[in-house]
Amino acid sequence: MAKQKIVTLMTDFGEEGPYAASIKGVLLQGIPSAVIVDITHRVPTYDVLAGAFILAQAAPYFPADTVHLVVVDPGVGTDRNILVARCGRQTFICPDNGVLSMVVESARLEAIVSVRNPRFMPLPGEAMTFQGRDIFAPLATYLLNGLDIHVLGPEPEVYKVLDIPRARDDESGIFGRVVFVDHFGNLITDIPGEMVRNRQWDLERLNVRCGGIDVGKIRGTYGFTKPGQKLALFNSMSLLEVAVNMGRACDVLNLGVGAEVSVTFDDRPGFERG
Amino acid sequence: MAKQKIVTLMTDFGEEGPYAASIKGVLLQGIPSAVIVDITHRVPTYDVLAGAFILAQAAPYFPADTVHLVVVDPGVGTDRNILVARCGRQTFICPDNGVLSMVVESARLEAIVSVRNPRFMPLPGEAMTFQGRDIFAPLATYLLNGLDIHVLGPEPEVYKVLDIPRARDDESGIFGRVVFVDHFGNLITDIPGEMVRNRQWDLERLNVRCGGIDVGKIRGTYGFTKPGQKLALFNSMSLLEVAVNMGRACDVLNLGVGAEVSVTFDDRPGFERG
Amino acid sequence: MAKQKIVTLMTDFGEEGPYAASIKGVLLQGIPSAVIVDITHRVPTYDVLAGAFILAQAAPYFPADTVHLVVVDPGVGTDRNILVARCGRQTFICPDNGVLSMVVESARLEAIVSVRNPRFMPLPGEAMTFQGRDIFAPLATYLLNGLDIHVLGPEPEVYKVLDIPRARDDESGIFGRVVFVDHFGNLITDIPGEMVRNRQWDLERLNVRCGGIDVGKIRGTYGFTKPGQKLALFNSMSLLEVAVNMGRACDVLNLGVGAEVSVTFDDRPGFERG
Repeated sequence: MAKQKIVTLMTDFGEEGPYAASIKGVLLQGIPSAVIVDITHRVPTYDVLAGAFILAQAAPYFPADTVHLVVVDPGVGTDRNILVARCGRQTFICPDNGVLSMVVESARLEAIVSVRNPRFMPLPGEAMTFQGRDIFAPLATYLLNGLDIHVLGPEPEVYKVLDIPRARDDESGIFGRVVFVDHFGNLITDIPGEMVRNRQWDLERLNVRCGGIDVGKIRGTYGFTKPGQKLALFNSMSLLEVAVNMGRACDVLNLGVGAEVSVTFDDRPGFERG
Repeated sequence: MAKQKIVTLMTDFGEEGPYAASIKGVLLQGIPSAVIVDITHRVPTYDVLAGAFILAQAAPYFPADTVHLVVVDPGVGTDRNILVARCGRQTFICPDNGVLSMVVESARLEAIVSVRNPRFMPLPGEAMTFQGRDIFAPLATYLLNGLDIHVLGPEPEVYKVLDIPRARDDESGIFGRVVFVDHFGNLITDIPGEMVRNRQWDLERLNVRCGGIDVGKIRGTYGFTKPGQKLALFNSMSLLEVAVNMGRACDVLNLGVGAEVSVTFDDRPGFERG
Repeated sequence: MAKQKIVTLMTDFGEEGPYAASIKGVLLQGIPSAVIVDITHRVPTYDVLAGAFILAQAAPYFPADTVHLVVVDPGVGTDRNILVARCGRQTFICPDNGVLSMVVESARLEAIVSVRNPRFMPLPGEAMTFQGRDIFAPLATYLLNGLDIHVLGPEPEVYKVLDIPRARDDESGIFGRVVFVDHFGNLITDIPGEMVRNRQWDLERLNVRCGGIDVGKIRGTYGFTKPGQKLALFNSMSLLEVAVNMGRACDVLNLGVGAEVSVTFDDRPGFERG
């Protein structure tokens, strides 16, 4: 049996109009047996940072050679480049706007090109193009069929990388911020679990604060708290998360993306967090 | 041709984050040709009763041997069990929280086990797991490939069944409540059509009330009413439904899940409902 | 390898309940290898015009012989007909309510029938049917398997066509209206790009007004404007669109479906729009 060809879509198009469906139609015209998976079409409009985060969290779980078609594109209609990258043995097609920033941090970037080959671009003077449908989708079918990405164009001299807030770790503690609010209202931070574990602190004596609000120590899981109680925990992405058991932390704490988070150690003798 | 392997997802994750997509990635890593169908990712957050209702309404329409992966899980992170059940010739993977309650009412429960076999569980001390992605999805691929569910663990001595409101039928009438409000604002009740038909009442002389509001008699269909008019009818689930033609009954009547519904017979001579 | 069988769904059911999933279950019972694609389940409730627009924009991108199953149906439960049409080498199953109006404008209508053959209809006296699940979905599987649509019933003497607002073109200018507001808040009009181009006007001297508000000339693309600036452009559907760069035109201009749009030419010597 031929290898299954898997393509994901991640966009900020929403699902209410014809845009995502028309991309799927083009993909199926090219490869009727393609497996098409929506990562999401609800990246907040034009929010490249949120897109970068979601993509980096979802992509690694897909099989090798999956093609990820990404359209979160505040620069549509400008002459920003189109990038195709091989990273972590998968292929990414996206605008050159930084949406790959978190993917390339966590997996090996094997190759990256800027699409220049006119064979894969609309002719000048043609009708306005919808790049996702008219360029990215046909490109995806070529790539799924084994096209070498170096045929598409040269390696770019520079490509955009987001200036991503990054947790820092100094003697007074660990300092980061909220990078994503999920469907449950959980505040997901950029503080990796290993940054905390590397300190070999006694977890019982840590204090987490978020947006100036005391969240207490780091718990193993929701199960150690009561409904309505605030807690900090390492989530399934191995990131520090501020949550409210059975509630919406973003509403209870009135905080969102960008809120500052700290993890500090209290070394007073006898101190233990409640 | 090998039999198609079909797996559905029903969760309260929403579609805006990476959670549902990462489950799909794991499924495709295990079985690249798997057919993945979303039942919904918008079960109201932590609402096991709504999940139980939607699952019981959707699952029976899928082919035999479909695997249903269900994550509506207010108890995530506690030590509640993971259940795998064979019911109505399909397979269900879900937390032990009652979300199967309505499925097992309407189809034969052939087998049920509590997942205990360490081969299918994360090792203690591993990073925090996202059970849907790290346990349920791999389990689904094993089950789709024919794993006998009894390998997973023993039959549980007890498992959770929701204390579901249930329509009752006495000499004064039939009494139930609203169990689901759909996208159109229709108020779907727990009163089965056959409970009404068994009384062999003259439908023209029935009176339906919902939340204390008179809804009139039971109509064959929307077509017998005018736009804006309230009506009661047996819906496509064979349940009594309170609706407003071209409107949203939940808003017009200001009622929701839990509202009481009655069907009574007026035996006054000459009486006929308008 | 057998030809892939592709079926799309377009409904106003939303995704939160069991309705769309139960249709998919029936499709997979009939054809386990069917490729099911959601065009959208969020056509505004009962809005046949919006459905007609989305369908006409998405369908042409799908392969020949795709079956489109359409349920936007304010007349459910009345005795309106069910139509099956071959148009543009694809097959459409829908209520006879005008939802096909824009598809048949842009592609050749090869055949159309009103479903009458009792073999494909529920028996009188059966439980209330959910037509999408109980009639349309089984029909789709027969049609995907090659059923000749003429078996289903006769050509209807009349079928409903929407009285669609249509752009008009006279010596004083071009006059149309907004027909769709997309996820980005863009106001999409019914003025085709070619209607403007046919006038061979100097684009620099055109003036677009929408709902009485001056939008300026027609730009090549967003890239020629600043964030927050209003603009008119030909979009990827080759329709005139009123937008706000990085903003929501529907909110900024406080306009929606039905708003009047004009394109006029200023022939004063030396005049040039900013």
